[in-house]
Amino acid sequence: MSLFADLLSTIFDRRADAAPRLRRDPRALPELVKELLEARSETVAAVLARHVMQRYDGMTAAEKFEAFRGLAALNVDAEAVRAALGAYEAEPSGRSYRAFMAAAEPPRAELLRRLNMVPGATERLVRMRADLLRLGRGEPELEALDEDFRHLFKSWFNRGFLVLRPISWESPAHVLEKIIAYEAVHAIQSWDDLRRRLAPPDRRCFAFFHPAMPDEPLIFVEVALTRGIPGSIQGLLEEQRAPLDEASADTAVFYSISNCQPGLAGISFGNSLIKQVASDLASALPGLKTFVTLSPIPGLVRWLEEQGVSIDPDDAKRMNQLAAHYLLTAKRGDGQPRDPVARFHLGNGAMVHAVHAGADTSENGQRQSAGAMVNYLYDLAKVEQYHDRFAISGEVIASSAVKALSAGREKAQA
Amino acid sequence: MSLFADLLSTIFDRRADAAPRLRRDPRALPELVKELLEARSETVAAVLARHVMQRYDGMTAAEKFEAFRGLAALNVDAEAVRAALGAYEAEPSGRSYRAFMAAAEPPRAELLRRLNMVPGATERLVRMRADLLRLGRGEPELEALDEDFRHLFKSWFNRGFLVLRPISWESPAHVLEKIIAYEAVHAIQSWDDLRRRLAPPDRRCFAFFHPAMPDEPLIFVEVALTRGIPGSIQGLLEEQRAPLDEASADTAVFYSISNCQPGLAGISFGNSLIKQVASDLASALPGLKTFVTLSPIPGLVRWLEEQGVSIDPDDAKRMNQLAAHYLLTAKRGDGQPRDPVARFHLGNGAMVHAVHAGADTSENGQRQSAGAMVNYLYDLAKVEQYHDRFAISGEVIASSAVKALSAGREKAQA
Amino acid sequence: MSLFADLLSTIFDRRADAAPRLRRDPRALPELVKELLEARSETVAAVLARHVMQRYDGMTAAEKFEAFRGLAALNVDAEAVRAALGAYEAEPSGRSYRAFMAAAEPPRAELLRRLNMVPGATERLVRMRADLLRLGRGEPELEALDEDFRHLFKSWFNRGFLVLRPISWESPAHVLEKIIAYEAVHAIQSWDDLRRRLAPPDRRCFAFFHPAMPDEPLIFVEVALTRGIPGSIQGLLEEQRAPLDEASADTAVFYSISNCQPGLAGISFGNSLIKQVASDLASALPGLKTFVTLSPIPGLVRWLEEQGVSIDPDDAKRMNQLAAHYLLTAKRGDGQPRDPVARFHLGNGAMVHAVHAGADTSENGQRQSAGAMVNYLYDLAKVEQYHDRFAISGEVIASSAVKALSAGREKAQA
Amino acid sequence: MSLFADLLSTIFDRRADAAPRLRRDPRALPELVKELLEARSETVAAVLARHVMQRYDGMTAAEKFEAFRGLAALNVDAEAVRAALGAYEAEPSGRSYRAFMAAAEPPRAELLRRLNMVPGATERLVRMRADLLRLGRGEPELEALDEDFRHLFKSWFNRGFLVLRPISWESPAHVLEKIIAYEAVHAIQSWDDLRRRLAPPDRRCFAFFHPAMPDEPLIFVEVALTRGIPGSIQGLLEEQRAPLDEASADTAVFYSISNCQPGLAGISFGNSLIKQVASDLASALPGLKTFVTLSPIPGLVRWLEEQGVSIDPDDAKRMNQLAAHYLLTAKRGDGQPRDPVARFHLGNGAMVHAVHAGADTSENGQRQSAGAMVNYLYDLAKVEQYHDRFAISGEVIASSAVKALSAGREKAQA
Repeated sequence: MSLFADLLSTIFDRRADAAPRLRRDPRALPELVKELLEARSETVAAVLARHVMQRYDGMTAAEKFEAFRGLAALNVDAEAVRAALGAYEAEPSGRSYRAFMAAAEPPRAELLRRLNMVPGATERLVRMRADLLRLGRGEPELEALDEDFRHLFKSWFNRGFLVLRPISWESPAHVLEKIIAYEAVHAIQSWDDLRRRLAPPDRRCFAFFHPAMPDEPLIFVEVALTRGIPGSIQGLLEEQRAPLDEASADTAVFYSISNCQPGLAGISFGNSLIKQVASDLASALPGLKTFVTLSPIPGLVRWLEEQGVSIDPDDAKRMNQLAAHYLLTAKRGDGQPRDPVARFHLGNGAMVHAVHAGADTSENGQRQSAGAMVNYLYDLAKVEQYHDRFAISGEVIASSAVKALSAGREKAQA
Repeated sequence: MSLFADLLSTIFDRRADAAPRLRRDPRALPELVKELLEARSETVAAVLARHVMQRYDGMTAAEKFEAFRGLAALNVDAEAVRAALGAYEAEPSGRSYRAFMAAAEPPRAELLRRLNMVPGATERLVRMRADLLRLGRGEPELEALDEDFRHLFKSWFNRGFLVLRPISWESPAHVLEKIIAYEAVHAIQSWDDLRRRLAPPDRRCFAFFHPAMPDEPLIFVEVALTRGIPGSIQGLLEEQRAPLDEASADTAVFYSISNCQPGLAGISFGNSLIKQVASDLASALPGLKTFVTLSPIPGLVRWLEEQGVSIDPDDAKRMNQLAAHYLLTAKRGDGQPRDPVARFHLGNGAMVHAVHAGADTSENGQRQSAGAMVNYLYDLAKVEQYHDRFAISGEVIASSAVKALSAGREKAQA
Repeated sequence: MSLFADLLSTIFDRRADAAPRLRRDPRALPELVKELLEARSETVAAVLARHVMQRYDGMTAAEKFEAFRGLAALNVDAEAVRAALGAYEAEPSGRSYRAFMAAAEPPRAELLRRLNMVPGATERLVRMRADLLRLGRGEPELEALDEDFRHLFKSWFNRGFLVLRPISWESPAHVLEKIIAYEAVHAIQSWDDLRRRLAPPDRRCFAFFHPAMPDEPLIFVEVALTRGIPGSIQGLLEEQRAPLDEASADTAVFYSISNCQPGLAGISFGNSLIKQVASDLASALPGLKTFVTLSPIPGLVRWLEEQGVSIDPDDAKRMNQLAAHYLLTAKRGDGQPRDPVARFHLGNGAMVHAVHAGADTSENGQRQSAGAMVNYLYDLAKVEQYHDRFAISGEVIASSAVKALSAGREKAQA
Repeated sequence: MSLFADLLSTIFDRRADAAPRLRRDPRALPELVKELLEARSETVAAVLARHVMQRYDGMTAAEKFEAFRGLAALNVDAEAVRAALGAYEAEPSGRSYRAFMAAAEPPRAELLRRLNMVPGATERLVRMRADLLRLGRGEPELEALDEDFRHLFKSWFNRGFLVLRPISWESPAHVLEKIIAYEAVHAIQSWDDLRRRLAPPDRRCFAFFHPAMPDEPLIFVEVALTRGIPGSIQGLLEEQRAPLDEASADTAVFYSISNCQPGLAGISFGNSLIKQVASDLASALPGLKTFVTLSPIPGLVRWLEEQGVSIDPDDAKRMNQLAAHYLLTAKRGDGQPRDPVARFHLGNGAMVHAVHAGADTSENGQRQSAGAMVNYLYDLAKVEQYHDRFAISGEVIASSAVKALSAGREKAQA
């Protein structure tokens, strides 16, 4: 048991706030960075890394921008790469290959690895990249620096290291307040609202975590267990509803998915979340037969406006036709579906199952989609096949009902 | 609490034996590998990765050798590297830099990352590299492949991800049996012997773990709490000794350090182990004032034989002189100390504190060092300074007593 | 590790809501109770116990009252007691003593022990006693029944079984919402208010738990770490205050103690809470030198009114005199201090250290004590001595400053 | 999470060895006991209790015997009981009933509750009772004292407080060494033998624990998962056997049940162990259809010898007849089955399913039962019905095969 208690305490000891603050080192940041890169002792490196991180935390946005430029300057040396590559070609060996690898990786990549020795570092480096993405947009050098972050994070946040955990009303409050803060689709208004989404027997929530950031969810999904497929988010989140006994549910509805870490942009760990949760739920609750989303259609109104199509949210039949038509036919320049949520679920192997006018009466729902929502269906037996058809031919898989609605719209137009 | 129970269960679910075996895929391994590299769906990739790993596990050494050759062939394309590098120089941007990074990394590196999606994969990849190190020695291509493993593991086993845990008599038996198996310095004869090293109040043991391999220690150190610095390993490990009350100990003796994973060769996480353990012990037991090893001198006898020096283990005074002289003066070609254990501790900032003839009466101790042992002292206040002096000038820091012994030997020789 | 995970899950499995509901047994409650008392198979008893508890949960207050009367009727048989006692006196043995014990214990006591086999039973029995205390007041039979509850709970909630745990912002939300609900001294207004009391580095909270009720705190204390002894609760709980670094605190202020379980009335586990928390804090934070409360004086205003003394909350000097005089001289019929909070802390060995007019500007504070508050000081070195003096002679230990204030009031009166 | 880590550490802090030893109090034991009984402060009581326990630990058997006599003298006062009972009858109230309860309970019972405040006390009190049972046999006073222990332990070790945990090869070594020590049926020879009983996928072990004694199993059962019902213990425990895949097992064999705590004699918590384990296994492994023991027949040889029946272990057919006849017909004076293991399982609702000559070739097996063993079958659907038939009419439920064997023996005799 003590083994485990210790794992726990060690993880907590890695938190930033557990470590006492250092007295400020008088040297300039670039000098500290240089020393850190050259340090041969791990202990020395750890102290220098803490100085660098502490210095960074105290910076203004302008200072951070300058610091990033300094980091970006620790770039690959193209001549050295060519020389090492030539040497490796001339005499391939472990040694010459290692020399090539060393030359092909800029010093700043090693620096980021060394910074990770600081308590709580992984989380702080993720926040550092969030700063970089915000400040460095459009700066070629900083975009290249960002590629090093992304490459490192792709390795550190490898799917094999992530842990799927349920989030419940018994989860620690400091994690739950992050769920409130990060919910991006249907805002959580209060702790009471949160309790309504977590505590009833017919509600579930799951998040991916990384062991080095045990307090920070990476992405989470909220699930409602229902009888039948619901067609309105207000019904699902109603305050006074009577909860369902979990054993009598036949459907799991994924009604909200939120990415939590802007600093992990481009590191995809979300695309297996729904499938893993669906498969875990299926084995825990054998009564569940249907796995479906209740999703927004964020691009619908803008697309209709661009097409000059008039919108009447109260004409449900026509709204359903318009929504179906948009989801099945509106494309981006690269041939992918125009709607970002559609791209995500179709890319996962889901199909467009049903559309619902008047399903989201919130201000946001009215503005984006005139209240329309959509169910994407995850048929676990067919999800790979649908994924392949979508990936290869770009085919948007849809139910015949949705296809008929879309065809109805085309007929009406013609 | 359920958050935690879940973390636990999820970690265990990642074990290899938790997953049902797959039915054998009829395709040849190279084809599976190719599909895995090309898979766009994470779920598809995960299934393919399990097939590849399962196929590997069933292979003979000769088949593994062939498989490694196949992997090695997924090498960098030198022309593509040059082209991407040129394009980046011509027009530096995030996009052109990413293209260069992609070209400079061989496909086999991405493959290893994808294999890590399999349950229990990290541990299995570490064992795979152990196979590679054994089978691929002297093969240039396989040594280059090993560099990719090493580079990946350096990132995955970054010091910031490791967890220091005490190992005690309350640790799980399946971890303890690995301690028995991995002890490399003073073999553990039985579970009773293990209990004598873990259960008494004056004994401690600590290991580094990685969260993705919770059952596998990476490196561990055994510690005895004593009054005064001991000069004999038999005294320390005596069966019938009366244990000391931990509060009355003034010295922590690191008497055995063992690396556990041959597949992590070259990934240094050991050099901070002693210092972290010493600093943890110092804060838990304020009575501890001295942190010292009781270490073997593995190269002594061979060096003396090479020098044609006669050895009499029972002449303690002369043995001490010989041992001191060896530790202070015997060097490798690169100027580093010839003794590997001395290199390790001096490189950590320790000093040679005392030598003891007749300190190790085991067969192994007689053969390697004619029974002599050495204390390396970790003076936490000076460890960085000593580290620097050793690193910069190669100076072997030693106590005046040891210096006098070495000088005595020189006088005797002259 | 699995040992521990399992302890966890087993504890949770004992929860009432984890067990499926039973189909209603058609028999009347008294018949079920009779069968339960006679059941020889533990498995049969467990099922009957679940029926009884489920039946109880569905009852109205009037039905519960009747059920309690039924229980009360399972009383000791006085003649059987006398006979068994006589037999034991005539021939003392283990067997005759056991027969006496059996006769002297009413069947309803065994019934309560059998009911404890139901999942979540301990918590439910505590709630059952809360019902009994509410409904049975003044009913001699039900008061006797309550004595059996009390006697059983005294054994079950023996201090040796209680566990002291910190409550923090990282505690599970379902426990924290109980802290909000149970806070009885200074109401917690919202989750933000709770966070302000738990999350800052200079705040602590501790609760006693029983392993069979892991979700239910029994009693908790809120602590502020300060420099110097505070004289106002508003200052302590101010929203915008800058938290203190815990290492620079010299004083721990116990500013709120709340009992959580009305069903455990008369089971004293609180009187060691403050001393244990003080001693734990003292060893964790060696800078802490002073352990003190900031307590209400709930009986002050009523006492002054009874005495016909006029009250001017704004005349601080006179209010301090009145408060000191009340605390030092006002007694109940049995010679104990009239103020209940004073009784509690003086009985624990604390002393009256200082009084503060205008220290509690809340409506409640104004009504009870015209805003005055008091610090009781826990001098860990003298707490036993003070406890004895108070217990034996009834002496109210107080600082010379408080004594002088009280004397000043007497002089003014004279 | 910290809530949990703390529960853990608090539990460990209650261990005896975590508390520093007290300086010896010069007073005599009876004086300390008297003070402890009179202490009004919980803190004072806790210190006194530690003195008493420490004093006890240092005693010889003769001194303990005297100490028990001293304890026994703190007996009920018969006159006081009669007076309080009369007063309660005259005027029934909570107060008069409480006075009766106080009089009917001897002071030594309260003393035992107060001793439980010492760290690790529960475990130490259980060991104290084991001493009492050993030393006090046949002493009427000490047997009466033991009844107070038994009554207290019946309350403390109420089934509702016990926790069922799996024991596996991942359990802590200090718990596993107790499994080795406590195994009472088929001795565990070594750690390798233990691993063979815990680690293979077709083996299980479960134990009951009490939260106040987390390191001490109370009772445990070892289970083998098999295909079909085994008829030999050697086959089951064979060193070289190939383990079965757990999913293909259809039978769970309870082949060893051991009580661990002599100090808990007479506190029955074992009779639901098998049924709970069977029901847990049934839900975890739906393939399991049969739950059966492989049990010794400890009284067979002695019974046969008493009857003057010759025994030939190698005549399997006759041995099976003798064993069946013994199990079905041999009775104690009270009409219960003569065989203690038979009493246990039949009392739990099991039936005699099959007998096996030559099933236990160990020395112990030969001596007790000439090598014969028996399967008791737990048919979960009928276990209550069989329990009732056995309890009411004393009917030994048996398979028709076993009945035929018994009848065959009767015919042979006749």
